[in-house]
Amino acid sequence: MSRNNNTWIITAQCPSQLGTVDVVTSFLKAQHCYIAEQHSFDDKRAKRFFIRTEFEPQTEAFDAAAFRDGFNNRAAEFGMSYELTEPGFKVPVVIMVSKTDHCLNDLLYRHRTGKLNIDIKAVISNHPDLEHLVSWHGLPYHYFPVTAETRSEQEEQIWQVVQETGAELVVLARYMQVLSEDMCKKLAGRAINIHHSLLPGFKGAKPYHQAYDKGVKLVGATAHFINEDLDEGPIISQKVDVVTHSDYADDLVDKGRDIERLTLAHAVSCYAERRVFLYNNRTVVFSR
Amino acid sequence: MSRNNNTWIITAQCPSQLGTVDVVTSFLKAQHCYIAEQHSFDDKRAKRFFIRTEFEPQTEAFDAAAFRDGFNNRAAEFGMSYELTEPGFKVPVVIMVSKTDHCLNDLLYRHRTGKLNIDIKAVISNHPDLEHLVSWHGLPYHYFPVTAETRSEQEEQIWQVVQETGAELVVLARYMQVLSEDMCKKLAGRAINIHHSLLPGFKGAKPYHQAYDKGVKLVGATAHFINEDLDEGPIISQKVDVVTHSDYADDLVDKGRDIERLTLAHAVSCYAERRVFLYNNRTVVFSR
Amino acid sequence: MSRNNNTWIITAQCPSQLGTVDVVTSFLKAQHCYIAEQHSFDDKRAKRFFIRTEFEPQTEAFDAAAFRDGFNNRAAEFGMSYELTEPGFKVPVVIMVSKTDHCLNDLLYRHRTGKLNIDIKAVISNHPDLEHLVSWHGLPYHYFPVTAETRSEQEEQIWQVVQETGAELVVLARYMQVLSEDMCKKLAGRAINIHHSLLPGFKGAKPYHQAYDKGVKLVGATAHFINEDLDEGPIISQKVDVVTHSDYADDLVDKGRDIERLTLAHAVSCYAERRVFLYNNRTVVFSR
Amino acid sequence: MSRNNNTWIITAQCPSQLGTVDVVTSFLKAQHCYIAEQHSFDDKRAKRFFIRTEFEPQTEAFDAAAFRDGFNNRAAEFGMSYELTEPGFKVPVVIMVSKTDHCLNDLLYRHRTGKLNIDIKAVISNHPDLEHLVSWHGLPYHYFPVTAETRSEQEEQIWQVVQETGAELVVLARYMQVLSEDMCKKLAGRAINIHHSLLPGFKGAKPYHQAYDKGVKLVGATAHFINEDLDEGPIISQKVDVVTHSDYADDLVDKGRDIERLTLAHAVSCYAERRVFLYNNRTVVFSR
Repeated sequence: MSRNNNTWIITAQCPSQLGTVDVVTSFLKAQHCYIAEQHSFDDKRAKRFFIRTEFEPQTEAFDAAAFRDGFNNRAAEFGMSYELTEPGFKVPVVIMVSKTDHCLNDLLYRHRTGKLNIDIKAVISNHPDLEHLVSWHGLPYHYFPVTAETRSEQEEQIWQVVQETGAELVVLARYMQVLSEDMCKKLAGRAINIHHSLLPGFKGAKPYHQAYDKGVKLVGATAHFINEDLDEGPIISQKVDVVTHSDYADDLVDKGRDIERLTLAHAVSCYAERRVFLYNNRTVVFSR
Repeated sequence: MSRNNNTWIITAQCPSQLGTVDVVTSFLKAQHCYIAEQHSFDDKRAKRFFIRTEFEPQTEAFDAAAFRDGFNNRAAEFGMSYELTEPGFKVPVVIMVSKTDHCLNDLLYRHRTGKLNIDIKAVISNHPDLEHLVSWHGLPYHYFPVTAETRSEQEEQIWQVVQETGAELVVLARYMQVLSEDMCKKLAGRAINIHHSLLPGFKGAKPYHQAYDKGVKLVGATAHFINEDLDEGPIISQKVDVVTHSDYADDLVDKGRDIERLTLAHAVSCYAERRVFLYNNRTVVFSR
Repeated sequence: MSRNNNTWIITAQCPSQLGTVDVVTSFLKAQHCYIAEQHSFDDKRAKRFFIRTEFEPQTEAFDAAAFRDGFNNRAAEFGMSYELTEPGFKVPVVIMVSKTDHCLNDLLYRHRTGKLNIDIKAVISNHPDLEHLVSWHGLPYHYFPVTAETRSEQEEQIWQVVQETGAELVVLARYMQVLSEDMCKKLAGRAINIHHSLLPGFKGAKPYHQAYDKGVKLVGATAHFINEDLDEGPIISQKVDVVTHSDYADDLVDKGRDIERLTLAHAVSCYAERRVFLYNNRTVVFSR
Repeated sequence: MSRNNNTWIITAQCPSQLGTVDVVTSFLKAQHCYIAEQHSFDDKRAKRFFIRTEFEPQTEAFDAAAFRDGFNNRAAEFGMSYELTEPGFKVPVVIMVSKTDHCLNDLLYRHRTGKLNIDIKAVISNHPDLEHLVSWHGLPYHYFPVTAETRSEQEEQIWQVVQETGAELVVLARYMQVLSEDMCKKLAGRAINIHHSLLPGFKGAKPYHQAYDKGVKLVGATAHFINEDLDEGPIISQKVDVVTHSDYADDLVDKGRDIERLTLAHAVSCYAERRVFLYNNRTVVFSR
């Protein structure tokens, strides 16, 4: 494995300026930290800088609090926000689903086998159907039914679970309810949704049926952050599969399942490895 | 090679009904024709049948005229339109371009090396720039400049070349002028255009810049038949390539060139091998 | 869905000769069967013919036994072996595994959600580890430990399960034991194995470590029929994923899991839909 | 474009040790150079460090000679070899071909349209066939015929052209002659070859025919550095395409052409952008 139990990650972003990389790397050197892999990018249009560094402290007594204390001032000078991720850290996650389970099943499998750096705190659904599957994995399942009238109360319930579990990330693994504008605001930048089309193509409902009607030769899926504009949030990952004249709309739905779960798993994996940066309505994704 | 100099192709379509395959295959057997490869498909929604058959006459004296005479009555019973393509047939083609030459260069190369079953009769452009390239390949180049005022005269010139050369197919290899509705009607179903996006996403001008603004992680191209509704014609082929945050709009333009020329070449190749069927606003493409 | 509860499939192969397609299609017409999709191919080197036809009887009283009775003579004339598959038929399958469960989990999920036309009769393993997973899916689990000394007895146990369950197909979903030559013979053509490399590259043990040592930029997986020559059986499906310098051998193992399960699921799905034909050491796969 | 006419590139490698990134970045900061994009990687098995940095001097009077003078000492302390590449630099290249021109044509096209940062100094062939194509692009063509007896003299001629043109890189664009061990040594690490298989699978002659015989479902190409062991040099890029039972060996040859030229162009492009690092028998490729 490229990362071991001594590998820390520091990620940061700030306005473009001279010395942005150096502020991180010179500090790491001073702290006797060896850099195993580093990627930086400067968006020339947005004039914004991004960096992700995997490093290994060369002293046994590496002290994260002292590291932060020392680095805070330097970061402040550059207007830099940063995040320090410790070895083996797993992102606390709440997953939301409805009845369809192909994305959920995939995330649960990767979670169970330790191949995704997430810690699933709870699964929330507006239907009772998937409790059995979730329980088998030893995870809490919250069934919060919802109608047009009870939406705000239900979203309050959801929000409470997110708060109480300390979830950093919410994953909408085919949750088929439209979230209120207020909920979208609360979740902006901390919730990843899977949409079953290559956004911005085929926004809205039944994208595979739209795709069939257009006679496309490719279908795809988009994993994106939630923002206030439904189906328009910043894109993290997109994948496609080939289809033919012989695939009716229902076949596209079937074929799409593999693409959806692979795309969502990829986005969540990138997020959990601190490879995703959000700014304006865009993402930087430092892939392997 | 799967096809040799004795391989004929018969393609046909008609309304769905009992005996559609048999009408073709029993006739082929009666004519002592061996079927090397066959593909048929019935669109259950449109209730329409499609078939493509590669066959090899087992008698030396195979007579295409007699074959047609014999088959016409049977086809008529089924409301079947069909086409018989002789061994080594090359589709007479007129290519239209503007200044950008990546698609043209690719088609010329495949044509020159005999890897595309087309016979390029002429290249038409609204700019003089690409004459040198076309002349080197020994092909006629028509420079027909156009302004808003002269569009109908210029399209008349184009149409005349199409007529005089006997072109069956017009290939718009990045021809950057909008065609009149009248011209679109004339070319409907017999002209293939390459659009530099995954239609119906990013219709209209500057699709790569639209794609950049949306922060997509994939760009693509679409080869489609021309119809009256610009950028909405029946899709023949679509391909994609991966892009990252590090690709600015100009980089997408650069990356897109390979996808565009591969997608267009694929569509033209499928057409030339009689693998493409057009109906309603869709295509059937029997790929290898 | 392209197939409904009235869609039968007939598949056949025989030596190349005049009238091979007609023998099938004229009989179907005579039986008042409508052909929804058909694909035939003639291997010119092997001089062997293959056909797959989806058809829908237009009479309510379609009688499969009578169909077979009627067709047997015609097939015999052509030296044609054929198979008639009824609507909704699911292939009886026995799955064999060791400790690794990514392929098994994937097959169980597709089976549970009805997306794979197989009927899993039993799972056999040389380890007890995966019983919990299999039991949760309500399927029998046979733990047959094996040592070099007990191989023939253990294979006898396996064979007995295959016989008793009436399994048509055995799927080796990362079964990490070498089968005896005798067992390979018994399973030849009726067992699909997943090998974690692009065969014939990286045969034998630890293919990802071999791949890492060679510094490849792609890894892949191969689903193939078992035959007597280990890792040399006829290939059904192959898929790849991109890797980089940053992926160590263990990372390749991780990345490979998705490719392995998608490749195996694809091969099993093609088999179950009667799209795979075996001859000499090759396959014909009529994909959608 | 991500790079403009003020973008310099520094690339370096050295043994793994504390401070490897800092030695580069702190110097760049001291020289008032802004880092636009940076990628570093440490191979933990080989204990070797690699870095590629795109930077923009913020002072008008940036002096490359002074930069080198200043950096040499620091680099020496780390045992670091480095390369400084100026804005707009094009790698001087000699291309070698035989009769097949699909890779050559592709490289010439990209060169002509300015999409590949190479400066083609000459094309060398053991056949006269491609002179016309090369001359049309205004480039020198050397026809050096070769027989088993004249190999060493011919290779001497080649080497002289490489020397005289100051070529940094030799591209073997389907040069179908085996090079002598001596020539391989001379070209080791500075010549890129395209092999028409997914090495190490199907080494040696006629790889597509080998692939056909094995019944593979994917074919591919490998661009690799030349070393003394033919077909075993360090891999830079690999790509694949799907094939079916319907593709005979000759069809694989045809299909492979697109993959070959895309793979070779990708490798040459990565090299020209200073994204490729060679060590032991491996490469690091920092892709976009």
